[in-house]
Amino acid sequence: MAKVKNNKLKARLPRGFTDRSAADIRATDEMLSKIRTVFERYGFDPVETPAFEYTDCLGKFLPDTDRPNAGVFSVQDDDEQWMSLRYDLTAPLARHVAENINEIQLPYRTYRAGYVYRNEKPGPGRFRQFMQFDADTVGAAGVQADAEICMMAADTMEALGIARGAYVIRVNNRKVLDGVMEAIGLGGEENAERRLTVLRAIDKLDKFGPEGVRLLLGDGRWDGGEEGKGDFTRGARLDDEQVDTVMKFTAGVTHGLPTSKGGSDRDLGDMKTWSIDGEEYFTDNRTTCLTLLHSVRDNPLAKEGLNELLQIASLAESAGYGSRRILIDPSVVRGLEYYTGPVYEAELLFDVTNEKGEVVQFGSVGGGGRYDGLVKRFTGRDVPATGFSIGVSRLATALKNLGKLGTDDVVPPVLVTVMDGDTEALGRYQKMAQALRDHRSDDYPNGIRAEMYQGNWKKFGNQLKYADRRGCPLAIIQGSDEREAGEIQIKDLIEGKRLSGEITDNVTWRESRPAQVTVKEAELVERVKAMLAEQAEDRAKAGN
Amino acid sequence: MAKVKNNKLKARLPRGFTDRSAADIRATDEMLSKIRTVFERYGFDPVETPAFEYTDCLGKFLPDTDRPNAGVFSVQDDDEQWMSLRYDLTAPLARHVAENINEIQLPYRTYRAGYVYRNEKPGPGRFRQFMQFDADTVGAAGVQADAEICMMAADTMEALGIARGAYVIRVNNRKVLDGVMEAIGLGGEENAERRLTVLRAIDKLDKFGPEGVRLLLGDGRWDGGEEGKGDFTRGARLDDEQVDTVMKFTAGVTHGLPTSKGGSDRDLGDMKTWSIDGEEYFTDNRTTCLTLLHSVRDNPLAKEGLNELLQIASLAESAGYGSRRILIDPSVVRGLEYYTGPVYEAELLFDVTNEKGEVVQFGSVGGGGRYDGLVKRFTGRDVPATGFSIGVSRLATALKNLGKLGTDDVVPPVLVTVMDGDTEALGRYQKMAQALRDHRSDDYPNGIRAEMYQGNWKKFGNQLKYADRRGCPLAIIQGSDEREAGEIQIKDLIEGKRLSGEITDNVTWRESRPAQVTVKEAELVERVKAMLAEQAEDRAKAGN
Repeated sequence: MAKVKNNKLKARLPRGFTDRSAADIRATDEMLSKIRTVFERYGFDPVETPAFEYTDCLGKFLPDTDRPNAGVFSVQDDDEQWMSLRYDLTAPLARHVAENINEIQLPYRTYRAGYVYRNEKPGPGRFRQFMQFDADTVGAAGVQADAEICMMAADTMEALGIARGAYVIRVNNRKVLDGVMEAIGLGGEENAERRLTVLRAIDKLDKFGPEGVRLLLGDGRWDGGEEGKGDFTRGARLDDEQVDTVMKFTAGVTHGLPTSKGGSDRDLGDMKTWSIDGEEYFTDNRTTCLTLLHSVRDNPLAKEGLNELLQIASLAESAGYGSRRILIDPSVVRGLEYYTGPVYEAELLFDVTNEKGEVVQFGSVGGGGRYDGLVKRFTGRDVPATGFSIGVSRLATALKNLGKLGTDDVVPPVLVTVMDGDTEALGRYQKMAQALRDHRSDDYPNGIRAEMYQGNWKKFGNQLKYADRRGCPLAIIQGSDEREAGEIQIKDLIEGKRLSGEITDNVTWRESRPAQVTVKEAELVERVKAMLAEQAEDRAKAGN
Repeated sequence: MAKVKNNKLKARLPRGFTDRSAADIRATDEMLSKIRTVFERYGFDPVETPAFEYTDCLGKFLPDTDRPNAGVFSVQDDDEQWMSLRYDLTAPLARHVAENINEIQLPYRTYRAGYVYRNEKPGPGRFRQFMQFDADTVGAAGVQADAEICMMAADTMEALGIARGAYVIRVNNRKVLDGVMEAIGLGGEENAERRLTVLRAIDKLDKFGPEGVRLLLGDGRWDGGEEGKGDFTRGARLDDEQVDTVMKFTAGVTHGLPTSKGGSDRDLGDMKTWSIDGEEYFTDNRTTCLTLLHSVRDNPLAKEGLNELLQIASLAESAGYGSRRILIDPSVVRGLEYYTGPVYEAELLFDVTNEKGEVVQFGSVGGGGRYDGLVKRFTGRDVPATGFSIGVSRLATALKNLGKLGTDDVVPPVLVTVMDGDTEALGRYQKMAQALRDHRSDDYPNGIRAEMYQGNWKKFGNQLKYADRRGCPLAIIQGSDEREAGEIQIKDLIEGKRLSGEITDNVTWRESRPAQVTVKEAELVERVKAMLAEQAEDRAKAGN
């Protein structure tokens, strides 16, 4: 046991886990509700799975396998079978569909929000428990399902208040990447592991830049930037020509595509131009696909992938989604192994300052793709599927940055103070709190938030300090004098605060009195309502 | 790996875990929202902790320790420290408060809903992952905090639609139970384990009846009901006189109190009478407390406990909560070890049929109590606290039994069918779905739920079967003829169903046609709205 002095137990959380504050919970709930509204509008219904799955059902699809249990938390059950906490919401959905395949009507369109767990090395902003919000269409072979998910992802960003142009849904296709690798001699089952290493190297483009990716495609890369510094990550051991082909294709720069630099806001009908470092680029999706098709013309797999991308771009455009919202981009990879076709990523394009003080684009807040093989592992028959996953905490951070979230508008409770602690008096105070709670009107369909002070009542100063730190709007006070007169004092704590903010010298302070009124007992609720209404009006005036 | 024939993986969940359906999720969300409203009204704010805690921080307070890891799921971290999944929401809250004791303003009034995990033997209706919804006041020494929680529990039951008289909040005090045990010679640290055995025996009164409890207080009890049958549970090894004292006190029958039999609905002001097996009993809380006080007059601890109960009853009555809502009952125990003072239990009094076909009272849906020692384990100083925990799934089951939940009023999406699968045609269908989703009006502030069929479009029958199984209200159809005429067909699937229900013979069936209209493309959205409105009116008429 971890003890501190005096044999006390040390209160601490395991690394990579965190508590959530009221403001965070309320902001996230608001965000989840907006996402849910979009998903429901698209015809998706909720379905949830539990935290545990049998380890073999989850499979090993995580990108980082440098930890025990391949990045998952596992325990052995009584019957010796291993179970693991889910590391995403996709693998459990595949199990759920397979288990209920005879009852489920395909296509099966569902969504779910839930915590996932990764037994990874925790770092700044990197948690071992985090929430994802997924939507999936299972039993849909055509890329129209992928196109729809991309549109829904775009709609979700806008429903959350992210302006058009401040986000983009980037789309690529694993078939294209696999085709390119086939073309450089990395085809076949025997190269599966190496292909994965290549994919994960490309996925690091944002993080390490083209030079870093070149190292990862070649012999490997030292974390510290030069030989012998930091940890060494082994590379895919491609030769220079192979590296060139991969870089040329995926980095996209040779096609005049924007990388993660974002673009201008100009919209020329279906054709979009983006301004990067002062230069204008075409990023019309059809042009992108046709250019890429030309460069892979000898590879059937890559061609198939690009034709699918062309179809996605075309369907998106029919429904009014141009390349400013849904952008074909050959550098998108996604880290999970189970993707088999189109992959997509929701990226936020505005700048933020990272922990090193560098200005960077906010980057990915979610992504997904087609996973036609996941259900087949169980059923043996094809059950094609595609889905999208939002990183809830990351998106919440982004929205806070944009000022679109976290304006906590829940008014703290009215505090009924305690001047006398005998049972009879406590009963009276309790009754006042209950009267406020029991009130119902158009403005208060759920009653007025109220509480009686529950700490040690003997120091009245502590009660006001409590009210102040909680931000209580009003304090209800009844001492023995008021009691005898059948009266109650109501102290306006917000008004009091405002006045004290305006007062600069001590004399005025002492002479000034916080707003306080005395009312008859029977008038308590009505007067509290009136004073809360005045405060609400003040807040509205202050534009808060 | 668990494989079935053909080397396929078997899709299955570990025992004691379950998937949740759309209806269950929507019903539970509605329930959580109502509970949250009550907790907020009482001035509580949300705070959440993660699923994992260090094992030593959680402590071992679970009643059943017949499983490895004492009933919890544990894993060892990289640094060799053990972490466990929380088994309740109280122990983690204590850790949270202790860790942030310098920043937190006491009293600290918070609530949280979350999953907890028990590594127990699963059984019917007994899960290893389930949701609790807790509210706690930390830093409140007086029993007015306990009284408030009991009132809030009562309000919660009524907010969920459970009628007054169909539930009761039973209240007892661990000090009373401990005092009674002191009186029979079970005081002192050396008897701590045995006291716990006695408490857990009493807690089984509902399950095993007085005779079963007598065995558990004595030598022990065979699960099968007679010697040698089933497992043997070792008893507290009290002698007959000790057993008599405990039974007499806790069973409550000697005081004319109702046990779990429920009572009549008659309300005589503050004094209540209950009719049990045709006999009327007083159950006025003051009378109960005074009677019990008389019987423990030589034991200071029990006296203290009863005086606290008297105060709780008195405070509840001041606020209008008589014994019909909050009932002092000496048989209440609660299984968790950490309680130190008042304990309470929310019980539903209506009858249900259990899995054995027996008619029983629904029973407990939540409970809680005072745990003054939990934070002190960390801080070394007194941080008194009390809290209440609702068993979310059990309560949801109860509400479904009462018909108060699970009436799923979410209308499934309008289905845009696919008659032609080329990219251009798919684009047109996609655009129709998007037009419905993009619509905004007072009736549809979030758009109209719609989706394009995403399965194999070639068998039109499959599309209608899909619409039927999902309960889609309307199907949108555009073949090449309609396309050329710039028209769209809208098929009323609900009307169609109703008509087919009225048709008994095959001839009429063939002659009858499901309700179907043809509209101009530009009129799609307005006509869909009108037809959905007609359906809503029909539902309202049908009282659905």
